Amino acid sequence: MQAHRALLLAFALAFLNASEIPADVAGDARDWRLQHEQSIIDSFADLLRIPNVASDTANIRRNAEHISTMLQSRKFRVQLLELEGSPPVIFAERLRPGAKTTLMIYAHYDGQPVNDAHWASDPWTPVLRDDLVERGGRTLPMTAPFDPESRLFARSAGDDKAPIAALSAAVDALDATGIPLSVNLKLFLDGEEEAGSPHLADMLARYRDLLAADLWLFCDGPVHQSRRPLLSYGVRGNVGFDLTVYGANRPLHSGHYGNWAPNPIMRLIELINSMRDAEGRILIEGFGQQVVPPSPEELQAIAAAPEVDRQLLQELGGARPETDERVELALLRPALNLRGIRSGDVGAQARNSIPTSATASIGLRLVPNQTPEFLRQRVEQHVRNQGYYIVHRDPSAEERASHEHIARLDWASGYPAYRAPMDLPIAQKVARIINDLAEGKLIQLPTMGGSLPLYLINQALDTPILILPIANHDDNQHGSDENLRLQNLWDAIEIYASVLTGL
Amino acid sequence: MQAHRALLLAFALAFLNASEIPADVAGDARDWRLQHEQSIIDSFADLLRIPNVASDTANIRRNAEHISTMLQSRKFRVQLLELEGSPPVIFAERLRPGAKTTLMIYAHYDGQPVNDAHWASDPWTPVLRDDLVERGGRTLPMTAPFDPESRLFARSAGDDKAPIAALSAAVDALDATGIPLSVNLKLFLDGEEEAGSPHLADMLARYRDLLAADLWLFCDGPVHQSRRPLLSYGVRGNVGFDLTVYGANRPLHSGHYGNWAPNPIMRLIELINSMRDAEGRILIEGFGQQVVPPSPEELQAIAAAPEVDRQLLQELGGARPETDERVELALLRPALNLRGIRSGDVGAQARNSIPTSATASIGLRLVPNQTPEFLRQRVEQHVRNQGYYIVHRDPSAEERASHEHIARLDWASGYPAYRAPMDLPIAQKVARIINDLAEGKLIQLPTMGGSLPLYLINQALDTPILILPIANHDDNQHGSDENLRLQNLWDAIEIYASVLTGL
Repeated sequence: MQAHRALLLAFALAFLNASEIPADVAGDARDWRLQHEQSIIDSFADLLRIPNVASDTANIRRNAEHISTMLQSRKFRVQLLELEGSPPVIFAERLRPGAKTTLMIYAHYDGQPVNDAHWASDPWTPVLRDDLVERGGRTLPMTAPFDPESRLFARSAGDDKAPIAALSAAVDALDATGIPLSVNLKLFLDGEEEAGSPHLADMLARYRDLLAADLWLFCDGPVHQSRRPLLSYGVRGNVGFDLTVYGANRPLHSGHYGNWAPNPIMRLIELINSMRDAEGRILIEGFGQQVVPPSPEELQAIAAAPEVDRQLLQELGGARPETDERVELALLRPALNLRGIRSGDVGAQARNSIPTSATASIGLRLVPNQTPEFLRQRVEQHVRNQGYYIVHRDPSAEERASHEHIARLDWASGYPAYRAPMDLPIAQKVARIINDLAEGKLIQLPTMGGSLPLYLINQALDTPILILPIANHDDNQHGSDENLRLQNLWDAIEIYASVLTGL
Repeated sequence: MQAHRALLLAFALAFLNASEIPADVAGDARDWRLQHEQSIIDSFADLLRIPNVASDTANIRRNAEHISTMLQSRKFRVQLLELEGSPPVIFAERLRPGAKTTLMIYAHYDGQPVNDAHWASDPWTPVLRDDLVERGGRTLPMTAPFDPESRLFARSAGDDKAPIAALSAAVDALDATGIPLSVNLKLFLDGEEEAGSPHLADMLARYRDLLAADLWLFCDGPVHQSRRPLLSYGVRGNVGFDLTVYGANRPLHSGHYGNWAPNPIMRLIELINSMRDAEGRILIEGFGQQVVPPSPEELQAIAAAPEVDRQLLQELGGARPETDERVELALLRPALNLRGIRSGDVGAQARNSIPTSATASIGLRLVPNQTPEFLRQRVEQHVRNQGYYIVHRDPSAEERASHEHIARLDWASGYPAYRAPMDLPIAQKVARIINDLAEGKLIQLPTMGGSLPLYLINQALDTPILILPIANHDDNQHGSDENLRLQNLWDAIEIYASVLTGL
């Protein structure tokens, strides 16, 4: 009896959902995709083959030219937006006479730097495998038919060339089946997002009119760990720094000086420990002063999302999380992340030597309304309070002679967090389209944990922004063996087709 | 009357001392050296040109053959002592019929591994400079006349090919001036000291008779920081390990997981902090249980030595030492030294990623009567007490799934400390010879801070051991830009000539 009722309910819901999508756009897109998987994958692999670290000027330009050609062949007007010293932003538009809504889709074609030694295969030679490398994934031929659970491995497969591949395929599918777009579509493809988008503010100021839209849809980051689609209303801000402390000005024999000579590793450890406790709580005085507590609606949205902590724990090997909070709540707090630490050598290269300096790379994640400038002041004041003299380059011999404790801080540029109001009408419309397509399974969250420069865009253009991610959560984004699960690519094609025709 | 007797006694002692050194050996050796500085330096540079990391089997053998030839040409009988898998020990002897004393001189011809990137010039291409690299030392032509304050830079220039060069020159000087040795001279030149001398115990057992002597004189390590000659009665023991802790089994985006995912750098920091305080005091329960406190004679000898802390502080750039104790007292304590730490990346290579593991390389320095086995147990128990499950290789997926905190410990071999009694007659005799040569400025210390496998030798041969170092304290031993100050080489030639003829 129970089972019977559940079945009936599911049937009724499916019927209701189906009626919201004009014709059966998603179904048509799926049919087209099923016939064209080989060419979609081939085209994606070609794009992934072009190295894309933001500082690699020549290859960044090759990417921009390759993507321009892809878009021009799909009836976009393409323009490379450039400022002195910036990689080009690929701006593209496909206007529809009479459309009432202008939608901007954002993605970025640059990727994180790679450490080749940690990759199972070359980061810019796409490889298909049947599972994650760390779970023993085996290489598969890159030929149809494809297992939707297989993954394509390459730098930026997930972050963030996937939206470019999916959107191209969605437009192809719509054009092939003769379904018109309902919106003026614009694209903004950044070439330096992983380098912190240093030119974005100037780009927005310079090309303000070109970039006007009713909504920016940010296609970056991963979907929910439950593999259900995700619409996110914000991001955390971001600012990073390297922290270096010093010992003696030459390496010292650890026997003849160990117990007497200052050990910079110990000093760094003490300094880090003074900044952050074992649970990730930040101990820097005044660090939380600008934090706005989450709204009841935001907490409610999180409560409505499925809990994934137990599943994550299993996937990640069982190591205990830093906190007992569910992950979505932990991400509402600002974070101080240790990204790297380096001094002396370990393993076979280790010497009985006390190093001259030790460096940690630290990333801060900001929540509304924290600003990088304020946090930089708080961090530096904290370091000063621990007895350190602060420099922003290597200390001179004179500085070393006159200060017993010296810390060097090298700051990267950063930006604040952003959150859109959860009751925004255009946001609700996008949410409804995707929720229908996902048979009611769309998850909405007040913020992603990651960072995107949404604050800048919102400030410059006064346009609301939503984040619509595509990649699987276990895509090793930013790490080695980055990958995209093919089903995520297939899903994205249908989502784009639905949004571009339903909005 | 009292004063008269004291004067008479002093006169008699001076006469006695003078009579102990046949003729003016040191003066003759100096005169000879002044005429032959170019050939001494050329020969030393040839020796330094042969790379000598213990694991580099082919080059280690080239060193052994080169040194054998050097010694054979100086009337030594040379024998390479070998065991399966060991580099050769160069054993050499030059017996004097009727000599009552057999003196063994120990040095090692292998050197610490190098990280080329940190050296100002190639580690195995000797370069003469007028000062330390970090003080802006300029390259000089390697031709006589030499400034005695200039330094020869190369791996093992100080540690520990210098004694081989000095002893060869001393023997040349004695032979050239026709002064006979007063002792049966034996040499034991190790080829794997920097690798922890894993075959030494077996060598001592196998070649026990060959290695018999009345005294082993260990020529390794640096002289006193005051640049006065040093005779040391002991060394600290040594045992090292790498400590690795784990986070998730794949790198995680620091935005999407930072505050929730376990950060192995933080875990490692906490673990290290639980082991050692900011002053270098070891917090591991039971770690000091075997420690024998220093004797009044040992404390007295330290009190008689000049204080160098202020000078050292200036030389080292002003960074505050870990302790207010004078350095010689700090070295009487066991030490837990951080040699290296590594996880993720820093600087331009840093990614917004939470690493999967973090590793520290830790060296323990032992004092009497601590043993490596006992300390290993104490360290592992301490790590267990912090909630860690211990492995000695990479943890399996099953281990990761069933333990929230896992630490991997990789132990190297080690050995205990050794100290000779300060009132030993043969030691007093050596001390008198060098003190006379140094015009009363010899410094005697109960222990060096560094480690040498003296315990093994004393156990196997029941022979007392003294340490007679040669190199300058600021020789960057074990670090990059290792060097020998030429005056130290010149002094060593006179010390060897005096000891070999006066003992």
